[in-house]
Amino acid sequence: MNKQLDVFFIGSGRLAQNLANALAGSSVKLCGVYSKTISNAKSFSEKFCVPCFENLQSIPTNCSVYFLAVPDSEIENISSLLNTDGLVVHCSGFMPMSQIINKVRTGVFWPIQTLSANYYNSLQHVPIGIEAALKTDEELLNQLALLINCTPQLLNGEQRQKLHLAAVLVNNFTNHLYAVAKDFLTKNNLDFNLLLPLIQETVTKIKTFEPALVQTGPAARKDLKTIEAHQKLLEQDPEVLAIYKVLTQSIIHHK
Amino acid sequence: MNKQLDVFFIGSGRLAQNLANALAGSSVKLCGVYSKTISNAKSFSEKFCVPCFENLQSIPTNCSVYFLAVPDSEIENISSLLNTDGLVVHCSGFMPMSQIINKVRTGVFWPIQTLSANYYNSLQHVPIGIEAALKTDEELLNQLALLINCTPQLLNGEQRQKLHLAAVLVNNFTNHLYAVAKDFLTKNNLDFNLLLPLIQETVTKIKTFEPALVQTGPAARKDLKTIEAHQKLLEQDPEVLAIYKVLTQSIIHHK
Repeated sequence: MNKQLDVFFIGSGRLAQNLANALAGSSVKLCGVYSKTISNAKSFSEKFCVPCFENLQSIPTNCSVYFLAVPDSEIENISSLLNTDGLVVHCSGFMPMSQIINKVRTGVFWPIQTLSANYYNSLQHVPIGIEAALKTDEELLNQLALLINCTPQLLNGEQRQKLHLAAVLVNNFTNHLYAVAKDFLTKNNLDFNLLLPLIQETVTKIKTFEPALVQTGPAARKDLKTIEAHQKLLEQDPEVLAIYKVLTQSIIHHK
Repeated sequence: MNKQLDVFFIGSGRLAQNLANALAGSSVKLCGVYSKTISNAKSFSEKFCVPCFENLQSIPTNCSVYFLAVPDSEIENISSLLNTDGLVVHCSGFMPMSQIINKVRTGVFWPIQTLSANYYNSLQHVPIGIEAALKTDEELLNQLALLINCTPQLLNGEQRQKLHLAAVLVNNFTNHLYAVAKDFLTKNNLDFNLLLPLIQETVTKIKTFEPALVQTGPAARKDLKTIEAHQKLLEQDPEVLAIYKVLTQSIIHHK
C-alpha cells in the first residue's frame, strides 16, 4: 500500500506559501519547511502549522516530494546540499530540470500563474507544467497537481522556457502597461478605475476570439493623426513614448 | 412635460450596434439609422427594428439625440450636412467636441470600452465620457447613460484625449501582446490557452493592488540571465524582440 503523500518546502516565499495553502486543503501532509532566513521559515511554520527546520542537514529525509521553492540561482546549490531519496522538484518556468544535481529522482512542478506573498490565489484549474526524470515520478506529480485541483501539463524544458517567455509577454508586460497607464492618469488627475471595465473586457474577449481579430485602436486602423497626437501627449515621458512607438509599429505590421 | 427621449444613429458599425443594443432594452425610442453604406444601414434596421434612411437630407429632424457613430475623420463633414435642432454628439475618445460644426447643441458620448460588431458587450457599469456645450444637454446625456446602466463621467476634451491614450496602453497594446504571445506559442506547437488563468489573474489582481507593486518576472528582479535567454529565443522574431527589450528596460527603470 502506498504511504500517504507528504511534501517538504525548501523556501517560504510566495510560491511555497501558495502551494502550502492549496495543499493544506488536500489529503497531502505538509511535513516541514526550511528557509535560509529563519524568521521567514518561522512565520510560514506558524501560518501553515508545519514544523520549521533551521538547518538543511536536520530536515526529514523520507518525504515524498521536496519543493525547491527558491530563486532560480539557488536551485543548483540547494539541491546539492539536500540529502534524500525522495523526489526533488524545482518550480521554475525557466530553469532546466538538470539544475537539480546529484539526485536520481528529479522533477519540475511549475504553476503557470502569478503568485503573491500573503495573498493566496485559488490555484483551481491553473495549469502546472510537469516534468520528471522517472515515469513513476511524473505520475506522482500529476497526482499532486490533481489533488489541488490544478491541470497538470507535461512540458519538457524547452517547451517550459517558451511558455515562460510567453507568460512574461502576457503577464509581466501587460501589468507594466497597467502601471504606466496608472502613472500617466494619476499625474493628470484622472482616475485609473475608469479603465477597469475596459481592461476586464479585453481579457474576456480573448477567451472567445482570436486576439489579432479583435484588435482595435488607432494603430490597427493606421490612423496616423491620432497616433501623432498621442505621441505629443507623451513628449514628457520618453520611456512610455518608446513603448508606444514600438507597440504601434508592431500592430501596424502585424498580419 | 418632456417628450419621450428618442435617438437617431448616423453610422451602423460596432459602436452604433452596441449602443442600439443597450438602448433597445430601455425606455428610449430608436427613431432611425442612416449609413452611407446602404446595405449596412438595412442590416442594422432589421436587427434593431428601426427605420432606415438612405439619404441624410430625409432623416427626421426632431429627434432628441443624434449619435455620430462614424470614423473620426467623418465627424466634421457629416455634422455639417445634418439638419436638426436636436443634440448632436460624437462618440470619439480622441476628437474635440468642436469637430461637430454649425450646431448650437453639441456633445460627446464616449463609451470607455472595446466594442465589436455582431458581439454585444454588456455596457453595464461601463463609464461613459460625457461633454456638452449646454448644461441642459450635459444633463440629458447623463440621463441617457444612466438609462443603459452605464456610469456617466464628465470629461472635457483634454481629459478625454488623455484617457483615450491610456486606453490604448491597457487595451490595444495588451491585446497585441496576447496576439504576439499566441503567434509565438502556435509556431512552437504550444497551447495559448495554458496562459488564460494567468491572464485573468493579472487583471483580477490590479482590481485590488497597485500594478507596480505586484510586478513580477525577470525584469522586475533584474534577472539578466533569464532576460538574455528570452532574447535568444526571440532571435527569429525581431519585432517581438524589440517589444521585449523596450518593456524590459522600462520595468527595470520603473520606480
